Amino acid sequence: MSAFDELMAFQHQTEALGQVAGRLGWDQETVMPRGSAAQRSEEMAAMESVLHARRTDPRVGEWLAAIDDAMLDEVGQAQMRHIRKSFARTMKVPADLAAQIAKVTSRAQGQWAEARASEDVAAFLPVLREVVDLKRQEGQALADGGDVYDAMIDDYEPDMKAADLQAMFDAMRPRLVALRSAVLDKPAPRALKGKFPPRKQMQLTRKLAQAFGYDLGMGRIDKAVHPFSSGSGHDVRITTRTSPRDPFNCFYSTIHEVGHACYEQGIDDAYALTPLGQGVSMGVHESQSRIYENQLGRSQAFTGWLFKEMREAFGKFGVGTPEKFYATVNTVHKGYIRTEADEVQYNLHIMLRFDLERALMGGDLEVEDLEAAWNDRFEADFGYAVDKPSNGVLQDVHWSVGLFGYFPTYSLGNVYAGCLHQALRKAVPDLDAQLAQGDTSAATGWLRENLQRHGGLRRPAETIEHASGMAPTSEPLLAYLEEKFGALYGL
Amino acid sequence: MSAFDELMAFQHQTEALGQVAGRLGWDQETVMPRGSAAQRSEEMAAMESVLHARRTDPRVGEWLAAIDDAMLDEVGQAQMRHIRKSFARTMKVPADLAAQIAKVTSRAQGQWAEARASEDVAAFLPVLREVVDLKRQEGQALADGGDVYDAMIDDYEPDMKAADLQAMFDAMRPRLVALRSAVLDKPAPRALKGKFPPRKQMQLTRKLAQAFGYDLGMGRIDKAVHPFSSGSGHDVRITTRTSPRDPFNCFYSTIHEVGHACYEQGIDDAYALTPLGQGVSMGVHESQSRIYENQLGRSQAFTGWLFKEMREAFGKFGVGTPEKFYATVNTVHKGYIRTEADEVQYNLHIMLRFDLERALMGGDLEVEDLEAAWNDRFEADFGYAVDKPSNGVLQDVHWSVGLFGYFPTYSLGNVYAGCLHQALRKAVPDLDAQLAQGDTSAATGWLRENLQRHGGLRRPAETIEHASGMAPTSEPLLAYLEEKFGALYGL
Repeated sequence: MSAFDELMAFQHQTEALGQVAGRLGWDQETVMPRGSAAQRSEEMAAMESVLHARRTDPRVGEWLAAIDDAMLDEVGQAQMRHIRKSFARTMKVPADLAAQIAKVTSRAQGQWAEARASEDVAAFLPVLREVVDLKRQEGQALADGGDVYDAMIDDYEPDMKAADLQAMFDAMRPRLVALRSAVLDKPAPRALKGKFPPRKQMQLTRKLAQAFGYDLGMGRIDKAVHPFSSGSGHDVRITTRTSPRDPFNCFYSTIHEVGHACYEQGIDDAYALTPLGQGVSMGVHESQSRIYENQLGRSQAFTGWLFKEMREAFGKFGVGTPEKFYATVNTVHKGYIRTEADEVQYNLHIMLRFDLERALMGGDLEVEDLEAAWNDRFEADFGYAVDKPSNGVLQDVHWSVGLFGYFPTYSLGNVYAGCLHQALRKAVPDLDAQLAQGDTSAATGWLRENLQRHGGLRRPAETIEHASGMAPTSEPLLAYLEEKFGALYGL
Repeated sequence: MSAFDELMAFQHQTEALGQVAGRLGWDQETVMPRGSAAQRSEEMAAMESVLHARRTDPRVGEWLAAIDDAMLDEVGQAQMRHIRKSFARTMKVPADLAAQIAKVTSRAQGQWAEARASEDVAAFLPVLREVVDLKRQEGQALADGGDVYDAMIDDYEPDMKAADLQAMFDAMRPRLVALRSAVLDKPAPRALKGKFPPRKQMQLTRKLAQAFGYDLGMGRIDKAVHPFSSGSGHDVRITTRTSPRDPFNCFYSTIHEVGHACYEQGIDDAYALTPLGQGVSMGVHESQSRIYENQLGRSQAFTGWLFKEMREAFGKFGVGTPEKFYATVNTVHKGYIRTEADEVQYNLHIMLRFDLERALMGGDLEVEDLEAAWNDRFEADFGYAVDKPSNGVLQDVHWSVGLFGYFPTYSLGNVYAGCLHQALRKAVPDLDAQLAQGDTSAATGWLRENLQRHGGLRRPAETIEHASGMAPTSEPLLAYLEEKFGALYGL
C-alpha cells in the first residue's frame, strides 16, 4: 500500500470511531437511563482518548511527510487538505493546554447553568475569565503570530476571516435594524389558539421531515430537550420536541434539523467515512438548515400546504385563511432570546455576539465589562433594554464551553442560504407551484445535486459559489428579507 | 504509579470501550435504522480493532511481567487472574487464525440462515466443516496439548472440564427422560384463550421487571426480535417481545433477562469498569436468569400473584383459578425447539448438543454424520422423530458462529440455580408468602448479597459454593423438578 492508501485506511477507521462517539452523544440525549450519566462520561472519555491518540499518532506525521499531494487527483488533494489541516491543528496546541481547556469548560458549563438560574452574572465571571484566558492562549498557539480570533473562526468556518465577516455584518446591520424597527411599528398577526396534542404533532412532523427528503430508512426522529442532528452518511438521526400550545416549535425545528440531516445523508457515498464525508463547515451546514426552514418552509407557497395539513390534523386553531396563516408563521415579535428570534432579528443577535467575542479575544474587552457592553448594544439594536441576565449575557451556553468563533457561522449560514435561494429560484422557476403542493423535491434535489453531495470537496466559500454561481454576499439575503417582510407588514 | 495501577487504569478504559461496543450492539437490535447496517459493520469493525489492539498491547505484557500478584490483596489478585488469563488467551491464538474465524463465521451465519429457511442441511455442511476445522485449530492453540473441548468451554465457563460436565449430565439424563415420559403420558393443562394487546403486555412486563428488582433508572426495556440483556454496571438494558396470543413469551423472557440484568446491576460499584465488574461466567449468569424465571417466576406462589395481575390487565382468558393457571404456566409439551422448551425437557436439549459438539471437536464425529446423530439422539430422549431440519440440527445459530463449548453453560446454569434455590429456601423460610404478594425482594436481595455483588471476585464454582454453601451438584435441581412436576401432573 502507498502512504496515501495507508493514511486513508487509518483515517477511515478514525471516522468510523468518530461516528460511534457521536452516536453515544445521541444515546445520551434520547434513550439513556438517567442514572447512567456517571458511567457514560467514563465511556465518552475513553472514546475521546482513543480518538485523540489517533489524531496525534506519529504514523500520521510520517504518512503526511511521505505523500506528495501534487501526484493525487482532485479528491485526493481535498482529502489531504483536511487531514493536513487537522493534524497541524492538533500538533499546535500543547496537550496540557487542551486538557486544561477540557477541564475548565466542563466546570464552567455547570457554573454558567447555575448563574443563569440565579440571575447572577458575577458568579459566572471568574470561571469565564479562566475560559477566556485559556482560549486566548489556544488561539495564540493556533494563530502562529496571526489574528487570534481568525484562528478560532477557522475551527468552524475554514478560511473565513474576522475582518471579512466584520465588513459583511457592518453592511447588514443598519438595514436589519431599520427593517426590524419598521415591522415592529405595525400590528402583529394573529396567534394560534388551542391545544395541539403532542402525538399528532409528531405524526405531522414525520410527514414534514419526509416531505423535505429526509430518509427515515437511514435516520430516525426522537424527542429530546434540544433539537439536534447527529451522525453522517447512512445513520443520521434528528431530534425534535413538542410544546402543546406551540406546534411551530416542533415543526420548524424538525425542518431545520432535516436540513442539517439531509446535507449529511446527501453526501456522495464515495466519500463515506472520509474527511470529505461530512458537511464542510458550520456556515455551510447552517445554510442548509436555514434554507429548508425559512426560504422554503416559511414561504407563502409552502405554508399554504402546511395550513391544510394542520387543519386536517388539529381542526380549527384561530387562524382561518392561508394568507393569515402565512403571516402568523412569519410573525416578528419583540424578544430577548436568540434561539426564539425570527428571520428579521436573528442576525442582529449574532452580530452583537460576534462583536463582543471578537473584542474579548482581541483583548479590547474584559469579562468584567461584558454585561454592560451586551446591554448597551442590545438596546441600540433592538430598541428596548435587557430585563435580566438570563435574557441577556447569560442566555447562551457557547462561551462557557469555549465556543468562540462559532456564533458568526449562524449568520454566515443565513447569508449563504440567501445566495443559494436566489440561484434556486432561477433554476426552478415554478418552485412555488410545487411547494404549494408540499412538494420540495425540485428544491431539495437541486441543493443535493449542487451542494450537498460534494461534502468537503471544496472550501466553504467555493462550495457556495459552485452551487449558487456567485461569491457569497449578503445582498440576496437582505433583498429577500426586505421584500418578504415589506409585503407581509405593508411597508 | 505502580505497574498494577497503570495496568488497572488501562484496563478501566478498555472496559469502558467494551461497554461502548456492547451498546452499539444494543442500538443495532433496537433503534438503528434499517439502512444503516453496512455503515454499522464498519463502525463495529473499527471498535473491534481498537479493542483487539488494546488486548494485545505490548505494554500489558510488560505490566504483567512487573507485577507480583502475591503482594496484592484478594481483590487485586482476582483482577490479575482475569487479566492474565485474558492476555494469555489472546496471545495464544495466531492473529491470522482469529481473523479467518471471524471471516468464516460471518459467512457461515448467513449460509446457516438460508439453509434453515430452505430445510437444506447439505447446503450448510461445507461451511460448517470450515468452521469446525478452524475452531479445532483454535482449540489446539488454546489447549497447549490438553483437551481441545476443555479449552473451548473455558472461554464461557472458566475452569470447568468436559469430563465433569459429562459425569453430571450422564447422571441427570435418565431421571429427566423418565420424568418427561411420565409427564407426557398425563393430560395437558388448559391453554390460555383470547388476545392480549401488546401495549398491555408491555405495561405488565415493566411491572414484572420492577417486581424482580430491575432498576429502570439504570436500564430500559425495548422490543427486539430476540430478548437479550446488554451492558454492565449503571447502564444495563434488556429487550423483550410480544406475541398477541402468548403473553407468557413476553413475561417470562422479561423475567429471564431481568435475572441477567440484575446480576450486572447488582455488582459492587467498587468493581465498575474492571474485570470483576461483570458476571463471572455464562453458567453463573444463566443461574440468575433461570432462578428468576423458573424457581421464583414459575412458582405456585408467584403465579398466584401473576394470575391476579393478568386478570386485571386482560379480563378472563380461559383459565379460571390460580391453581389451573399455575399448571398452565408450567405446561410440559412436546416440541422440537430448545428455546421453547419447558423446565423438564430443556436440559435434554442441551445434553444432546453437548455430546454432539464434544464429539465434533474431539474428531469422533464428522459434520457429514451430524444430522443422523442428532435425529437418533432426539428420538431416543424425546420419544418421537425430528420432522424437519429447522426443527432439528439447523435450529440453533451457535455452531455457525463458532460457539462450541457454550451450550453446556445453559444446563450448568440450571444446576447452579437448583443449588441456590435450595439455600435460598432455607434462608428465607416464608418466601412463598412474599412471592404470593408479588414481592421478590427477600429472594433477589439474598441473591444480590450472596452472589451478584461479588461479580468476578471468585471462580464460577466457588461463586456458587460461597452463595449456596455447597459444591455445585445436580441433585437439588433434579429433586426440585421431580417434586414440582410430580405434584403438578399427579405422578
